[in-house]
Amino acid sequence: MKKGAFIVVEGGEGSGKDTQIRLLQEKYGDSVVFTREPGGTPLGKVLRDMLLHQSHGAVALPTELFLFLADRAQHAEEVIVPALSLGKTVISNRSWISFIAYQIYGREQFAWKELVEASIAKIFEKCPIDLAIIFDMDPKIGFERMKARGEPLDVMEQMPMAAHERIRTGFLETAKTLKNPVIIDASRSKEEVWKDVEKAVASVL
Amino acid sequence: MKKGAFIVVEGGEGSGKDTQIRLLQEKYGDSVVFTREPGGTPLGKVLRDMLLHQSHGAVALPTELFLFLADRAQHAEEVIVPALSLGKTVISNRSWISFIAYQIYGREQFAWKELVEASIAKIFEKCPIDLAIIFDMDPKIGFERMKARGEPLDVMEQMPMAAHERIRTGFLETAKTLKNPVIIDASRSKEEVWKDVEKAVASVL
Repeated sequence: MKKGAFIVVEGGEGSGKDTQIRLLQEKYGDSVVFTREPGGTPLGKVLRDMLLHQSHGAVALPTELFLFLADRAQHAEEVIVPALSLGKTVISNRSWISFIAYQIYGREQFAWKELVEASIAKIFEKCPIDLAIIFDMDPKIGFERMKARGEPLDVMEQMPMAAHERIRTGFLETAKTLKNPVIIDASRSKEEVWKDVEKAVASVL
Repeated sequence: MKKGAFIVVEGGEGSGKDTQIRLLQEKYGDSVVFTREPGGTPLGKVLRDMLLHQSHGAVALPTELFLFLADRAQHAEEVIVPALSLGKTVISNRSWISFIAYQIYGREQFAWKELVEASIAKIFEKCPIDLAIIFDMDPKIGFERMKARGEPLDVMEQMPMAAHERIRTGFLETAKTLKNPVIIDASRSKEEVWKDVEKAVASVL
């Protein structure tokens, strides 16, 4: 195994991300550090609850941006960079790519795009992404899958369908700026998607 | 009283800020909104504890910047802008000026200065500062006063003396960029300082 790859798994709601990550965990186990954003650190867990479940009341839009950046900064410093420098591979359930897709595109905070991107570039300068797997599909299908699960929706999941369409655009636009994006058609069966995921991950390990 | 002035009171540790703000509260009472940063909102109080008391463990340096920005963004949206637009005067115990002085100068995070300043400019674009009262003095005197109080020191207060010297420079440098800075010699008696504070505040009300 080549050492220290940073892999992120991205996609809209109901795209099967969590299922595929479980399959990766079954395959790679403890040889890989599995983590997530937001909430990949103890401090990040509190921020995640503020952001996704409004644990401390309504969060203003600019505040949301900075809380997400704080979560990411702590995660980079406390988890990603230390693991990579020990030669470990890190697979993160979401990364700053979701942040751009949801907060800038989904929330239409384009006035903040440049500042947010400059902040991300600085936060992650020591841990560039080696592989970004992006699950792409019509958000209407994802929404149906999500409803079928019957679980309560968090703040991001509750955004209107038009926002989820913009989030999809955000992922695809951001993918164009990445070194190694692998866009996977997530509307297919779990088994078909897994074949592509397995191949993509193997290509960098 | 002219309506809607935004006044901030700034200064290093032990500079007598809190005492002078109590005198302002006695004089103006409920006619003025007294608030503070960090911690001027319910969400901000949690962030304040993370930042000053490490309530959720060690906070990485870049994380600190974004948590402070989140606190300020929430405070601007939830407290300052609404109060000013109702015609109220707001007096804040610290503002983004302290943030620049402590986090950029004190922590020597100059690589982040431009990004942080651009973020602050956007967060506070609807609430420019009408008056900044800055208590200036040799930080050694402030430190002696603080020690004499015998209270446990928070994360910022615990910074070494060299950092407190830089923080003083940060206040004075930032003052040069402000529309209406009033720098007050805080090494004098409470009564002498109060005369200057009273005059400065009266000049904008």
